[in-house]
Formats: sequence, structure tokens, C-alpha cells
Amino acid sequence: MKFKRSSCPITNVLDILGDKWTLLVIRDLVLGKRRYQEFTSSPERIASNILADRLKKLEAAGLVTRQAYQRKPARYEYLLTEKGEGLNPVLEAILVWGKKHYPGTKRFPRVEQRYERVDPMLPAMRRGSRSPG
Amino acid sequence: MKFKRSSCPITNVLDILGDKWTLLVIRDLVLGKRRYQEFTSSPERIASNILADRLKKLEAAGLVTRQAYQRKPARYEYLLTEKGEGLNPVLEAILVWGKKHYPGTKRFPRVEQRYERVDPMLPAMRRGSRSPG
Repeated sequence: MKFKRSSCPITNVLDILGDKWTLLVIRDLVLGKRRYQEFTSSPERIASNILADRLKKLEAAGLVTRQAYQRKPARYEYLLTEKGEGLNPVLEAILVWGKKHYPGTKRFPRVEQRYERVDPMLPAMRRGSRSPG
Repeated sequence: MKFKRSSCPITNVLDILGDKWTLLVIRDLVLGKRRYQEFTSSPERIASNILADRLKKLEAAGLVTRQAYQRKPARYEYLLTEKGEGLNPVLEAILVWGKKHYPGTKRFPRVEQRYERVDPMLPAMRRGSRSPG
């Protein structure tokens, strides 16, 4: 097995998640956000090009899948894969430490919403559905 | 309370830890490393200027303290504070996920070593001792 920096699992995780934005995109996905505009409207105001870059990397790493919800123009929504959902304990551990040491911070609420089917020719999107890959 | 990006605890943690190197320095500290040369000899080969920058930031954030172990020239060693040691569950969660998804990676071993007192005028360094702040 060839590793980029070392055979340390933490190092290999940081090679994909070690920046100021990637885990925030995963946080938003965990909270139920799926679409571009939802991510960019989070209070951290992620720039559109950074969001596009991170979603692409997360998809390449198998943490996220995307599926079309509209055809013309093509629009996609993003879902965590099982691998991506496995990061929940990491987010929880960060959250526990963060809440303790940054007084006034608090866990963001889950996003409860349903989407309209924009294009009746596309398969229905159901909350909690997952594509296989 | 004024926050840099948002009141999300995860966001505030990423503002200090969100890069490819900071958590590796903390990993090394958890493993028992204390001195510059020990950090730079880790397989990821952190550059000396990056290491200096991260240690300074970690000290400013109260995660690390330094104490002199030699006077001329001045040399320091670094120890995790209680706040810094509180990051252990974060590292563990990352490690568990990383080991699962990066086959061939494994936990690095603890560094078992004792240091010589270089300058007899400085207080003795004992393994596990912590300065108050």
C-alpha cells in the first residue's frame, strides 16, 4: 500500500478532511441539507467555488453521491454515503470539545424540509433515500 | 459573544485545527513527543517553519505549554495542557474511521523515552509533569 504522507490513519484522513470547510459541508449534509443554495446559505457563507471543489473531492473519495433533481438546466443534490455517514462520531467528538471550550456556541438544528419534484421524469426523491454508490 | 464565522462549535474548532498539520502535532504530543527534532522526524516530515507556526498557535489557544530545557541557546519542549489533552476523543474518532477506510494504516506507537537534564539550573523535567497554565 502506498501512502501519500505516512501510514498513520489520522494523516490519511487529514489529507481529505484537513481544512476549514470540508467538515462543514459534511456537517450540513448530516443536518439534512442537500442542495447548493442550502450549503451557501449556511452562516459561514462558503464561497460557491470552494463548495464545488469540496463536493467534487468528497464524491471522488466516496463520501458523497449526487443525483439529478432537475434536467434543464441540470441540477444535483448531494447525499452522504454510508462511508460519509461514518464520520458522525468525528463530528460529535469535535462538537463536544468545541461546546466545552467555546462558550456560547451551540449545535445547529436539523433541517426539516421536503423538496418538490421539479422534473416528473426523474425518479422521486424521498427523504432518507440513498443511491447505491 | 462574537464569533469569527458562526456560533457552530465545529466551525470554531476548525478555525484552530482545520488544516493538514495541526492535528498531527497534537497526535505527536499525545504519543509523547516533546521536542522540535522529534516532531520534524515524524514520517510526514513537517517543515520547521510550519511546525513553529502551529506550536505558536496552539500555545496561544491554550492547548500547549512550553518550557525551557536548556538555556544557552534557549531550547523548549512542548506539553499538552488539559484542554489539549481533551482532544484525545477527536483523534480517536478520526483514527477509528481512518483505520476502517484506509487499509494498511495503523496507529503509531507511543514514544517511550526519557530526557537528560541538559541544564542543571533548570527545574527537573519529569515525564507526565505539567506546568500550571
